Amino acid sequence: MNQVIQTLLNHRSIRKFTDRKLSQEQIHTIVKSAQQASTSSNVMAYSIIGVTDQNLKNELYKVSGHTHVKNNAHMLLFCGDLHRINQLANTEEKQYMESNLESTEQLIVATIDAALAAQNATIAAESMGLGICYIGSLRNDINRVNELLELPGHVIPLFGLVIGYPDHNPEIKPRLPIDSIYHENKYKPFAEQEQFIEAYDNEMRSYYGNRSSNTKVDTWTDQMIRKFSTPTRMDVTPFVKSKNLNKR
Amino acid sequence: MNQVIQTLLNHRSIRKFTDRKLSQEQIHTIVKSAQQASTSSNVMAYSIIGVTDQNLKNELYKVSGHTHVKNNAHMLLFCGDLHRINQLANTEEKQYMESNLESTEQLIVATIDAALAAQNATIAAESMGLGICYIGSLRNDINRVNELLELPGHVIPLFGLVIGYPDHNPEIKPRLPIDSIYHENKYKPFAEQEQFIEAYDNEMRSYYGNRSSNTKVDTWTDQMIRKFSTPTRMDVTPFVKSKNLNKR
Repeated sequence: MNQVIQTLLNHRSIRKFTDRKLSQEQIHTIVKSAQQASTSSNVMAYSIIGVTDQNLKNELYKVSGHTHVKNNAHMLLFCGDLHRINQLANTEEKQYMESNLESTEQLIVATIDAALAAQNATIAAESMGLGICYIGSLRNDINRVNELLELPGHVIPLFGLVIGYPDHNPEIKPRLPIDSIYHENKYKPFAEQEQFIEAYDNEMRSYYGNRSSNTKVDTWTDQMIRKFSTPTRMDVTPFVKSKNLNKR
Repeated sequence: MNQVIQTLLNHRSIRKFTDRKLSQEQIHTIVKSAQQASTSSNVMAYSIIGVTDQNLKNELYKVSGHTHVKNNAHMLLFCGDLHRINQLANTEEKQYMESNLESTEQLIVATIDAALAAQNATIAAESMGLGICYIGSLRNDINRVNELLELPGHVIPLFGLVIGYPDHNPEIKPRLPIDSIYHENKYKPFAEQEQFIEAYDNEMRSYYGNRSSNTKVDTWTDQMIRKFSTPTRMDVTPFVKSKNLNKR
C-alpha cells in the first residue's frame, strides 16, 4: 500500500488543534492542490475564502456551534461561484447565459467543482501531518454566512474546512460495508443492502460504546431516522434561489 | 514536496487507455479509499455503480459521446443516494422525513458526499499509476442513464469516472491564477479578479496554440461565454424533481 492510499485510509476528522499556525507556503500548497482537481469543462465554478480574521471566525462559530470553527490554524470556505462566469459577459451575452446559470444543472456543477477542490485540499493538508474537519453546519444559517462573506449574486457558501495540527487522536470511524454502497452495472435493491446495514449497525453500536470519548448507545439506523425526522435548513432552498441559482 | 502532493499537482485527465485491466484488489482499494472520505453527519448519501458490462458502457457512450466511456479499464458511476436513508424508516417515519429528503439542502449534501468520495477514488487510482477522467456528459441524457442503471426514487446519477492505464501523456492544463479564486475573509469583487483572468486568457491562448494535440485559437473567457450562451441539460431540473429530490 503506497503512502497516498495510507493517507486516504487513515482519515479521521480532527476537531481539536494545537496553537501552531500554518506557514503561508503551506496554505499556498493546499490551495494550489485544490485548484488542480478536475473541474467540469474547465468552468472552475467555485471560490475559496481563507478566514484569517479571528472576529470572523467567532461569528462563523455562532452559526456553526462547533468550537473548532473558532479554534483552528486556518479555515477555508468553499463557495459555489457562477458570478465570475457571469461577469465575463457583456449585457447582451448575460441574457443568453441566464437560463444556464439559473439551472439545477449548474448548481450541481458548482457543488461538484467545489467539493472536488476541497477534497484535494484535505488530502494535501493530511499529507503534511495536518488534520481537517468539514463544516457543513455553516448552512445552519446560510443567509448570515452570505452576509458575513459579502457574497454577490450567483455565489453561495457550501461548507467550511478547518485545518490545523491535531491535538487529539480519535479513532477512525467505520463506514458502511462496501457491499451496501458499491453496486455492479445496476442499482442493487435495498433488500440486498439490508444485511450489510444490519452488520454496520452492530459495528457502530460497538464503536460508540467503546470509543475513547463521547461514548453512547446508538446505531446508524436510529441516528439517521432521528436526524431526518425534523426538517432542518429548509431556508437553504429560498436562499439559493435568492442568489439566482437553482431557479429553473 | 511529498509524494501525495506530487500526485495532486500532477493531475491531468486521461482519455486514452491501454488494454490492461485492473485487478479486483485495485478496484477494492479504490472504492475503500472513496468510502473513507468525509461525509456529512455520516449520512453517506451516495452510491457507486461499477460498470463492467461492455454493452452498458456502449449505451453510456451513446449518451456521453466520448470514446473513453466505452474504452476504459473500469468505470465508476457516482450517484446521489437518499433512497437508502428513506428505506431505513417505517411508513410513519417516512412521512416525517419527507421534507428533509426533498429539500435543496439534501441535494447539496448528496452531491458533496458523492464528489468527496469520487475525488478520493481519483487520488487512489492516480497514486497507482492509473489515469482518470470525470464524465459529466452522462447528464446529457440523465433520464436515459437513470433507466439504464435502474435507479429507484431519491437516487440520481451525478457523474462517471473512467479509469485505466494511460495510453497518452497530455500536458497539465493551467488553472485560473490563485488570486482569482482565493479570497481572504470576504469575497473579492470581480474587478479585483479581472487582471488575473486576463493573464489566464493569455496563458490559455498559448496553451491551446502549443499543446501536443487538438491545437486551437481560444481563450477561457471566449470558451465560457460560448458554453453558457446556449441552454444545455435543462432537463436535469425536472428529472431531479421527478426523483423526489430538490422539490421543496
